[in-house]
Amino acid sequence: MSFGYLGPEATFTEAALIQLLTAHDRMDAARRPMRSADAALAAVAAGELTGAVVPIENSLEGGVPATLDALTQHGQLQIVAETVVRVRFVLAAKPGTELAQVTAFSTHPHAEAQTRAWLSEHLPEAHYIPAASTAAAARDLAESDVDYQAAICPALAAERYGLTVLADDIGDRKDADTRFVLVSTKRELPAPTGADKTTLVAALASDRAGALLELLEQFSTRGVNLSRIESRPTGDGLGLYQFSIDAQGHVAEPRMAEALTGVHRIARRLQFLGSYPSADGEKVIVDPDMTAQAFTAAADWLAEIRG
Amino acid sequence: MSFGYLGPEATFTEAALIQLLTAHDRMDAARRPMRSADAALAAVAAGELTGAVVPIENSLEGGVPATLDALTQHGQLQIVAETVVRVRFVLAAKPGTELAQVTAFSTHPHAEAQTRAWLSEHLPEAHYIPAASTAAAARDLAESDVDYQAAICPALAAERYGLTVLADDIGDRKDADTRFVLVSTKRELPAPTGADKTTLVAALASDRAGALLELLEQFSTRGVNLSRIESRPTGDGLGLYQFSIDAQGHVAEPRMAEALTGVHRIARRLQFLGSYPSADGEKVIVDPDMTAQAFTAAADWLAEIRG
Amino acid sequence: MSFGYLGPEATFTEAALIQLLTAHDRMDAARRPMRSADAALAAVAAGELTGAVVPIENSLEGGVPATLDALTQHGQLQIVAETVVRVRFVLAAKPGTELAQVTAFSTHPHAEAQTRAWLSEHLPEAHYIPAASTAAAARDLAESDVDYQAAICPALAAERYGLTVLADDIGDRKDADTRFVLVSTKRELPAPTGADKTTLVAALASDRAGALLELLEQFSTRGVNLSRIESRPTGDGLGLYQFSIDAQGHVAEPRMAEALTGVHRIARRLQFLGSYPSADGEKVIVDPDMTAQAFTAAADWLAEIRG
Amino acid sequence: MSFGYLGPEATFTEAALIQLLTAHDRMDAARRPMRSADAALAAVAAGELTGAVVPIENSLEGGVPATLDALTQHGQLQIVAETVVRVRFVLAAKPGTELAQVTAFSTHPHAEAQTRAWLSEHLPEAHYIPAASTAAAARDLAESDVDYQAAICPALAAERYGLTVLADDIGDRKDADTRFVLVSTKRELPAPTGADKTTLVAALASDRAGALLELLEQFSTRGVNLSRIESRPTGDGLGLYQFSIDAQGHVAEPRMAEALTGVHRIARRLQFLGSYPSADGEKVIVDPDMTAQAFTAAADWLAEIRG
Repeated sequence: MSFGYLGPEATFTEAALIQLLTAHDRMDAARRPMRSADAALAAVAAGELTGAVVPIENSLEGGVPATLDALTQHGQLQIVAETVVRVRFVLAAKPGTELAQVTAFSTHPHAEAQTRAWLSEHLPEAHYIPAASTAAAARDLAESDVDYQAAICPALAAERYGLTVLADDIGDRKDADTRFVLVSTKRELPAPTGADKTTLVAALASDRAGALLELLEQFSTRGVNLSRIESRPTGDGLGLYQFSIDAQGHVAEPRMAEALTGVHRIARRLQFLGSYPSADGEKVIVDPDMTAQAFTAAADWLAEIRG
Repeated sequence: MSFGYLGPEATFTEAALIQLLTAHDRMDAARRPMRSADAALAAVAAGELTGAVVPIENSLEGGVPATLDALTQHGQLQIVAETVVRVRFVLAAKPGTELAQVTAFSTHPHAEAQTRAWLSEHLPEAHYIPAASTAAAARDLAESDVDYQAAICPALAAERYGLTVLADDIGDRKDADTRFVLVSTKRELPAPTGADKTTLVAALASDRAGALLELLEQFSTRGVNLSRIESRPTGDGLGLYQFSIDAQGHVAEPRMAEALTGVHRIARRLQFLGSYPSADGEKVIVDPDMTAQAFTAAADWLAEIRG
Repeated sequence: MSFGYLGPEATFTEAALIQLLTAHDRMDAARRPMRSADAALAAVAAGELTGAVVPIENSLEGGVPATLDALTQHGQLQIVAETVVRVRFVLAAKPGTELAQVTAFSTHPHAEAQTRAWLSEHLPEAHYIPAASTAAAARDLAESDVDYQAAICPALAAERYGLTVLADDIGDRKDADTRFVLVSTKRELPAPTGADKTTLVAALASDRAGALLELLEQFSTRGVNLSRIESRPTGDGLGLYQFSIDAQGHVAEPRMAEALTGVHRIARRLQFLGSYPSADGEKVIVDPDMTAQAFTAAADWLAEIRG
Repeated sequence: MSFGYLGPEATFTEAALIQLLTAHDRMDAARRPMRSADAALAAVAAGELTGAVVPIENSLEGGVPATLDALTQHGQLQIVAETVVRVRFVLAAKPGTELAQVTAFSTHPHAEAQTRAWLSEHLPEAHYIPAASTAAAARDLAESDVDYQAAICPALAAERYGLTVLADDIGDRKDADTRFVLVSTKRELPAPTGADKTTLVAALASDRAGALLELLEQFSTRGVNLSRIESRPTGDGLGLYQFSIDAQGHVAEPRMAEALTGVHRIARRLQFLGSYPSADGEKVIVDPDMTAQAFTAAADWLAEIRG
């Protein structure tokens, strides 16, 4: 068994995979960093990996476009689990380096943007050197001859590359979380737990607001609540959108099943991306009119009147 | 085989029954006048009659309360056919009577109200004597010693009691129609024809406008159009209503079936009163997203993702 | 000052008028019975009457068609008050008559229908003679030489014509109420009280269920609840309906005003029939988002962004 | 007059500003590159700039988070114009360099991601060196001693820094567009043209799907269509969203004004970000029920019934 993740190694994504493997007692599985979310998912689709972990939503930035798009393009994949990781940056340096010695630092531009308050206070004079990823900045610092003395990276990267943490938790926002999903092929649906999410992507037949209203009514008339709805460009032009949705419940429940078939009928395109236990484990509260029992009672009534 | 109808005999209701029996080539069946819609339906429910014809809707007055209520009270009944009869009154008298000799006339108060324009022009001085029905006015004129010389009644009553028509089609409105339904027990559902109606009565869980909106959405999200929706008091107090509905389509169609189960889940009480061919025979136009094929395609898709 | 009412005198409608005049301390006003709801309202419209009282809704039968239609036809009228009267029948006879002496009785067919349980128990052998109204049965018994010994009528009629009550409250249903409205010309709108109703009649541009949904949304998006919605045939053919609506609130409130202008834009025809204090005096509960304050705050915000 | 833009200079954003200044015949105005969308908008808010151009939406990536967030944070700003720029990358080198001589290239990671197909065909062996922006890669190539021979950048950057275009239009997608907006302070609203957009950000009072439905109904009941609706995290935690919306029409139109006040009442927070001419110049088609005339007619009707 081997699991891929959006690389390079020692990023928050590898931390998420470790978290999921630990929870399922599978830390013996191999972990393989992949060049992109698309490459990771393509390898899963091709059967080269048991599964892959990719970031899907960030509390500051929203949905992760590359992941949402890659999931949509590989039809035969499904999400089977999710986990949430705190985005926590450290300033790391080679052992022996002091903060006062840092005249230049490196990290990914996003991480630089998210640590500016700390930087302007503690390293106002330091020069910024962009890196392709936070972990690459750490690795190069440890292994290559570079022009900087510190890297902004996850704690996992500092540890992996033998760096010392000069300052911990230096992000401007302390409440930034990223949600990661474990994706596998569509062999077997995770069993319903009562605290599940269903993820799907729907492209509407028209771009009018009325079409979105009609989509939402497919859920509301069956008592299904949504925990996330995001518009995503279809890529076919400005203003052409599809919707990426997390709905509360499992496709094994009749209310979710009927809502999905309702969406299937009206949508131009609908992709089911999985039903899986939610990271928070909170039981979904179901309207008494929309329980499996209510569906069964209605179906029995219908069978009787149809004779 | 014997069919009841809202009596007395020779009213528009018997005319409707004759129309239906003729259409189904069953004029050999016995016709029995019943005292009230309730009595007619009770006799059907008790197995004493093969079926019964009762008026359900009038183009001037709307739904017929006594019929709607009686249908609701006898749960084991269903509508199996409908027909429409023009409301056409004649002024009838004993053979030999001239219009100038009419100093008093009799009819049901409703018929008197609907012929006032003609009366004020042609019989401005005549005295009105109320009768329990239009046909009773005709029958008593023919058979008893009464204080009036003319009756306002259907042509069928004049013919039945050997009266002469002094004036034809004397109603103030020439476009008044009444819709009648043939009611039988719930043995067998009429087969779908593509031009069907489904009649039901739903009592909502709350009297708020929102509850009615929610009811209507159960139909609109499945592409089912309504040809009649009428509020009816539940009889439990002012402002407490249930809804009597004619929906376009047959319960054998999946869109109607899903709409009805949706209503079943949210309604406080739901009664199915039948799926039957509409009198006008117009095919119901079904949204391409809501055909049986679209439902089958969605169900197949669901089965596949459920694995 | 003179007020009309749906006659003849001594019916429940006169009782409703007396109730309203008493409440407003105007028992000195003249009361004039009118032949029909239409005649009463026409006289108000013509300025011959200060106002008129007509029945608008019955807890057993629902809306009163003749009144709803007459209100719709006289555009320059408005409802200014409402009151509710218990439908309570008595069996009345000339002083000295005993129940055992009653071999025939008279009343309006509706009253006969509503007292059948009592009649079959206490007067199983008595012969029924139809009358044009309950009060006419009482009056003729008191004043003419008739073939019956008792009349079923309101207590007011027994009292008016000097009859003795042989049995009180003989209706099969003890909870039957009728709602009456006082109609005047559109001089002055009653002031809002916080416990008001607004009555209107809307004909939709199409008969599709979607049009009714759209109508209801005009109210729901402004937080206006409906206490009565009834379909009424437009009289133009079977299945062609308009909607008679009682909405909770007063047209002086911005939420009601905006809902009505919204309906005005989408309806084929809209008639405002009045804003007036509700008979029950219960304050309307207004959603915090829909108060006059919320409307003012939104209007202020709009004015500011419009510059 | 001076206008800022998201720098560095010679990016697509400067191209957008040039396009807008040309259209308004103001090419004499100064153009100032700003470090971030936030810095550009802050300078406008502080009165240091006449206006600023920032990217708001990309046809491949959707809404631009940094811009949407910065617009939301500076309440006193408004969008006054928009323009669309094709995303067209070139491979640029110092004059005299041949493609065969390129062993390393530099650009922003996004640009590298969007040109991979071309790169794998034409420069499969070249080494990639990340840069903070496409224009910085071009500038450094022109002005500094760097380890690469080519930069992937807009044509404007090649021209600005005296570089030669080795290959034009090398993006994997030829149909990628970016929409830019010109932002100024809230002095004066652009006049309505009949082809306008209104941009706003609404945070709902609850995260239930029902709240989004209610938001959309505020637009649909007034016949306002949306050309873009995007969820944006509020930044307060995973799953907490606000909605960034482009609606078709101008706040000077009554249908838009009423929709916005409706949203104002139900939203937890609402920001108006401007009404301005749409880049495509297409007239908005208004439902006949929702024209300014229909609003005026309804307002007149209301004034009349209110007396």
